Amino acid sequence: MPGLAGPMEMLVAELTKLPGIGPRTAERLAFYILQSPREQVQALARALIHVKEAIGFCELCNNLADQPHCAICRDARRETDLLCVVEHPRDIVAIEKAGGFRGLYHVLLGALSPLDGIGPKDLKIAGLVARVKSGQFREVILAMDSDTEGETTALYLVQQLKPCKVRLTRVAQGLPMGSHVQYADQATLSRALEGRRDV
Amino acid sequence: MPGLAGPMEMLVAELTKLPGIGPRTAERLAFYILQSPREQVQALARALIHVKEAIGFCELCNNLADQPHCAICRDARRETDLLCVVEHPRDIVAIEKAGGFRGLYHVLLGALSPLDGIGPKDLKIAGLVARVKSGQFREVILAMDSDTEGETTALYLVQQLKPCKVRLTRVAQGLPMGSHVQYADQATLSRALEGRRDV
Repeated sequence: MPGLAGPMEMLVAELTKLPGIGPRTAERLAFYILQSPREQVQALARALIHVKEAIGFCELCNNLADQPHCAICRDARRETDLLCVVEHPRDIVAIEKAGGFRGLYHVLLGALSPLDGIGPKDLKIAGLVARVKSGQFREVILAMDSDTEGETTALYLVQQLKPCKVRLTRVAQGLPMGSHVQYADQATLSRALEGRRDV
Repeated sequence: MPGLAGPMEMLVAELTKLPGIGPRTAERLAFYILQSPREQVQALARALIHVKEAIGFCELCNNLADQPHCAICRDARRETDLLCVVEHPRDIVAIEKAGGFRGLYHVLLGALSPLDGIGPKDLKIAGLVARVKSGQFREVILAMDSDTEGETTALYLVQQLKPCKVRLTRVAQGLPMGSHVQYADQATLSRALEGRRDV
């Protein structure tokens, strides 16, 4: 970065390491930070460090937590007999934003991916089976991604959880809202047809 | 941000204050930071603080500097009789990247904008006039932005510097490289025609 003072070059280099931030965006952010009030920059720096220091995983469901149990597991108003299984903590954020689900979660912290060497032992599956075996839940909803890894993981979980005599469901796959049949890909269309419902 | 632990919410809130970073991008960045090695996060936090603490403006040209004089003013290999006037330090970065210019700079730290209440006294114009009056330069190149504020500033500087008996030039305005006449806007096209050169 010719013409920039050393500390600016360092900041641009660090910002460029973040995903989706190229050299141009990093430069723009660095100039913005240079012109921001000192307190705002310090607050950002503190928040960065604090996240790494204070956040771990919930002992019950593996969601992000700044205490032994996450905010959802601690919430007495949740339906404790309904469990939704997701791949990542960020999936919980999306489902909570959508609203409507008031049960508990279980985070696998990944999905099965033999090509990447990720097997059942690398995911939080043993803990899930133990929770379901305890008989606490009347229904377990599988909310994996609709990609190859998600499909594989869902199939594997069905095998593992079938003996538990619990109602097992999977989130619907089909046309996303606001989309057009004309532009839908083949896989989505066949799932949408397979999953058709009486009206 | 429902379902996120407190420190994550704080980090997302701080990241959202940055320009061009909306809630979704902030969330993605926050999850990335959570999964990054501790050293990388600390390096980023340090770089943020360091920029605010260590960077000031060059006493000669108002470029960013971590010493009293900026890296360009300190560089003995620059042509000291050629001056390029720009609005912002980031313009210097762009010109240095383009290469070809080996003279010195003067940063105005803004442009005239009567509507925003920015007059000549708010810019580093007095210092520019003093530098030019000293007789050090054989040519002063005006490299303002090609917008209303830039045009206004360039016109004002021409008035101020004319008495200094120095060669005053302005960077060319016309079709950007890789563009098509067909799609050029009227203002650009008339500037390109006005500024036509013998071949």
